[in-house]
Amino acid sequence: MTYQAPVDDIVFALKTVAALDGMETSGLYPELDADTVVAVIEEAGKFGAEVLAPLNAIGDRIGSKLSDGKVITPPGFADAYRRFVEGGWSALPCSGTYGGQGLPELVATPVGEIWNAANVSFGLCPLLTQGAIHAIEAGGSEALKAKFLPKMVAGAWTGTMNLTEPQAGSDLGPLSTRAERQPDGTYRITGTKIFITYGEHDMAENIVHLVLARLPDAPPGTRGISLFLVPKFLVNGDGSLGDRNDVICAGVEHKLGIMASPTCVMKFGENGGATGYLVGEENRGLASMFIMMNAARLGVGAQGVGVAERATQHAVAYAKERRQGKSFTANGTGGMSPIIEHADIRRMLLTMKALTQAARMICYATAKELDIGHRGSDERTRKDALNRAALLTPLAKAFSTDIANEVASLGVQVHGGMGFVEETGAAQYLRDARILPIYEGTNGIQAIDLVTRKLTLDGGTTVTAFLAGLGETIAKVRAARRSDFGHTAERLTEALSGLQSATLWMAQTLPGNPEKALASATPFLRLMSLTAGGTYLAKGALTEPEGSPRVAIARFFAENLLTEVKSLSESVQHGADSVLVDAHGAVFA
Amino acid sequence: MTYQAPVDDIVFALKTVAALDGMETSGLYPELDADTVVAVIEEAGKFGAEVLAPLNAIGDRIGSKLSDGKVITPPGFADAYRRFVEGGWSALPCSGTYGGQGLPELVATPVGEIWNAANVSFGLCPLLTQGAIHAIEAGGSEALKAKFLPKMVAGAWTGTMNLTEPQAGSDLGPLSTRAERQPDGTYRITGTKIFITYGEHDMAENIVHLVLARLPDAPPGTRGISLFLVPKFLVNGDGSLGDRNDVICAGVEHKLGIMASPTCVMKFGENGGATGYLVGEENRGLASMFIMMNAARLGVGAQGVGVAERATQHAVAYAKERRQGKSFTANGTGGMSPIIEHADIRRMLLTMKALTQAARMICYATAKELDIGHRGSDERTRKDALNRAALLTPLAKAFSTDIANEVASLGVQVHGGMGFVEETGAAQYLRDARILPIYEGTNGIQAIDLVTRKLTLDGGTTVTAFLAGLGETIAKVRAARRSDFGHTAERLTEALSGLQSATLWMAQTLPGNPEKALASATPFLRLMSLTAGGTYLAKGALTEPEGSPRVAIARFFAENLLTEVKSLSESVQHGADSVLVDAHGAVFA
Repeated sequence: MTYQAPVDDIVFALKTVAALDGMETSGLYPELDADTVVAVIEEAGKFGAEVLAPLNAIGDRIGSKLSDGKVITPPGFADAYRRFVEGGWSALPCSGTYGGQGLPELVATPVGEIWNAANVSFGLCPLLTQGAIHAIEAGGSEALKAKFLPKMVAGAWTGTMNLTEPQAGSDLGPLSTRAERQPDGTYRITGTKIFITYGEHDMAENIVHLVLARLPDAPPGTRGISLFLVPKFLVNGDGSLGDRNDVICAGVEHKLGIMASPTCVMKFGENGGATGYLVGEENRGLASMFIMMNAARLGVGAQGVGVAERATQHAVAYAKERRQGKSFTANGTGGMSPIIEHADIRRMLLTMKALTQAARMICYATAKELDIGHRGSDERTRKDALNRAALLTPLAKAFSTDIANEVASLGVQVHGGMGFVEETGAAQYLRDARILPIYEGTNGIQAIDLVTRKLTLDGGTTVTAFLAGLGETIAKVRAARRSDFGHTAERLTEALSGLQSATLWMAQTLPGNPEKALASATPFLRLMSLTAGGTYLAKGALTEPEGSPRVAIARFFAENLLTEVKSLSESVQHGADSVLVDAHGAVFA
Repeated sequence: MTYQAPVDDIVFALKTVAALDGMETSGLYPELDADTVVAVIEEAGKFGAEVLAPLNAIGDRIGSKLSDGKVITPPGFADAYRRFVEGGWSALPCSGTYGGQGLPELVATPVGEIWNAANVSFGLCPLLTQGAIHAIEAGGSEALKAKFLPKMVAGAWTGTMNLTEPQAGSDLGPLSTRAERQPDGTYRITGTKIFITYGEHDMAENIVHLVLARLPDAPPGTRGISLFLVPKFLVNGDGSLGDRNDVICAGVEHKLGIMASPTCVMKFGENGGATGYLVGEENRGLASMFIMMNAARLGVGAQGVGVAERATQHAVAYAKERRQGKSFTANGTGGMSPIIEHADIRRMLLTMKALTQAARMICYATAKELDIGHRGSDERTRKDALNRAALLTPLAKAFSTDIANEVASLGVQVHGGMGFVEETGAAQYLRDARILPIYEGTNGIQAIDLVTRKLTLDGGTTVTAFLAGLGETIAKVRAARRSDFGHTAERLTEALSGLQSATLWMAQTLPGNPEKALASATPFLRLMSLTAGGTYLAKGALTEPEGSPRVAIARFFAENLLTEVKSLSESVQHGADSVLVDAHGAVFA
């Protein structure tokens, strides 16, 4: 199955939801016009389709293997990475200071989506490197930045995030990797980390590990965690590679999916201690790590969109070719119809397409706010935008990755029995997608983050203004009175009302009964995402002529998927007690 | 992870939904009392837990392999099958005429659920054999029955269903396997079948293939299909095994899951033609095949319940052991809490448990109707019951297998990163479950069957009476006014109302606009299943004292899952146009 980057859909989403056309006039990116953005996305689409997509199936079949402490990536991966670096793709989203191209999130996000649609195992490597670059930029000393960032931005060296230990996952408090101060200002790192993506591989000459560890005199819990840079090879004063550091890959996990992406057990200090450099302040490592995590969360959302897009393309192509039964639209003569003509198959394909496009729009809306947040003209503008980005980030991460699984599973279903056969390729998307709701903060954590930290931003003003913004769009849909929109305006109005009352419930419940609020966090995140996604789709559809396929998608979403908001709002407001009623545990005794 | 058959839950469901206690008094099974049924289920639970469950992971890892035309099942499978046969489990659901124990569906269904919870790859073999026995019983000549059924009932020989060909899946019309009449009354079969479960294996001495094929003078399409019995080894007059028949396994699929169950490409007649025996009448093969399929559909529903139960047990066990963060219920001292104490994890586990139990009750309710249909005292009773069974069968098949996937996916999520690592075992349930909505008629086909053939049974009386029955239970829930039921009565009343209006919409839409009705078939099946499942759970809960865990489950289902009916009813009634609006295909151009 050939992947084609959906450039038209991407650009449409950028224009209608992320105000791409206003970028120049707004002064945000005076150097960048919409045509340039489109050109970059087209080029990325070519690279993804021609270089990365053909390696997706072979990467799955062969996987990355550990042999004598070395990780061998599947055939073609190292070469593709070399071309990726040569093409300057690694530097695209990085700031100009260290050689980056300084392109905005609005470009980086769709480009990341394309890498991950083409090959999610490959796409993880630059995604993690990006996160590491962000953290070093934010907290590293000038010397550390000068030594490591140019090579990382160029893609010659890749980056990793070393958080998890067997006993410390979602809760990093109990992590036990140790860091001891050395007389020369460096630190000696000792401990074991698990689930380290691209912790070891053969695609780059050096690997820069960012490692959370605890100083001997650190306070317990998350307030005693520091962040260290631990390179695979130490770097000499002249920038050349020096000695091998005391860090090894001790194992590669046997996983459900993303087989080509090595998930490593990393051992630091098996031979006396790995040399590490402090990033940021001692005991403040979690703050730096969150910078990295937050950027990565939007990136993981874009992975979800990418996998969903790929699964949809695959299923649509199959449904056009595969013939079974006779559809109502078939004319009297001839044999069987392509299954895409059957209503139930159409429902599945429309669901796939509509969910994918809604998630894409949520991700791009988040990216836009990040750009304004970074480059807005005044502090108030920047702060408001960063708050909106913070509000949207858990939606972008959790909704996009949840729907990636739903879409990939529908993709298997559309293929019938062939979907269960691995050669078809549909099953790989499902296996690959399954990690996305788990890593970079599980989707449950995202929902808790949304409810406890994001709804309360700026005293609740951020979410109130956000809902008002959705309301303005919905008012326009109502005012348009377009018959081709079907019941879209009605469903959007109901959904917003459901979201408003659920948000109010959260605001009233959280202070006095936080556990009850958390019991409803997951359905709340889903209903907010559906309402935002449905509104964005309709906003885009309003710019389209009557009978446009984009109108059909927005309408399908409103009439068939957005309807779920009503149920979810009821569950949020009246279902939490029954989550908690059995707090003494008899149900699971 | 050790599997424990949920004997209490099974018996509770049998008593409250399937009227187990009334079996004796009703005269249906005078020879069988409830204690005997419980004893059988307990024994099955032991066999499943001790013999089959331990082979589940190894079966997945090693899989069945084709070597020199022979299929080697994973280590332990052949021995387990031998013990299965020795224990008399194969004969359990078969009629006494050919050596079966003649136990009712009410026993066979939970026992089948246990085999499949323990090991779905193993469970498929007796499930398929059962289907073949049904078809031969229904359509075979006395000679054929006498020759094949005793051995099949005893489990010495297994059975298969050979329907699918590359061009003929959901639509069997174009199947091209040929059957030529021979002077001796047999037929010569030539052709290739795919997706043949246990088409070849090393667990039994003979394999009895039931094969759909077309006579040279058969009319085209589904009216020209005949059913043939084609044994792997021909059987001599004295019952001993004779020559190898001309049927071989030419390949085994590389699949997403159920690795231990060989999915075979079968070639008939590569060397002149396989010998086959007609089952039923010429050109009436589809009718016989549907007997087999219908029985198998409830069996597949029970597979879904089994996999969901196993995934739930696995996730609950992990959530009790794994500690992260501190829950609200934790007392001030000490370290991290078991994650089962966190509200979001509880929501996931409750969802898993509630969906599993609702699906189980739907399956058992179906089984009960089949038993009344087979043994009821008068024809009207039998016919009404068979109609109710026919109405419930698509729900039992599709809902149970859909929720198996949802539950297994939640199970992975509860495990966090460990869920994505294959050694944990959670991912296998997801991979295994993914075939269930596809085979024995895709869930889309089930929804079409429900809407076009089942709602119209007995002029619509069957469904009307069924809804009235649900209404009676719901009235009892309302009348009970139990505070521990929370909003259960309210939610059930709303759900029934949603189901009623959606059913009415279907009745009004189907005759004039069948395509539109089909466009809403899938959400209709879901909403009917949710309403039935929620009502059954509440019916059971009414028999329980205040504060019972079963009340907590029924309430959780009503307040958090049944709410979806409202959305679905709206989608059914107002969403179909947007599935069809783009009939000219611009969306997928």
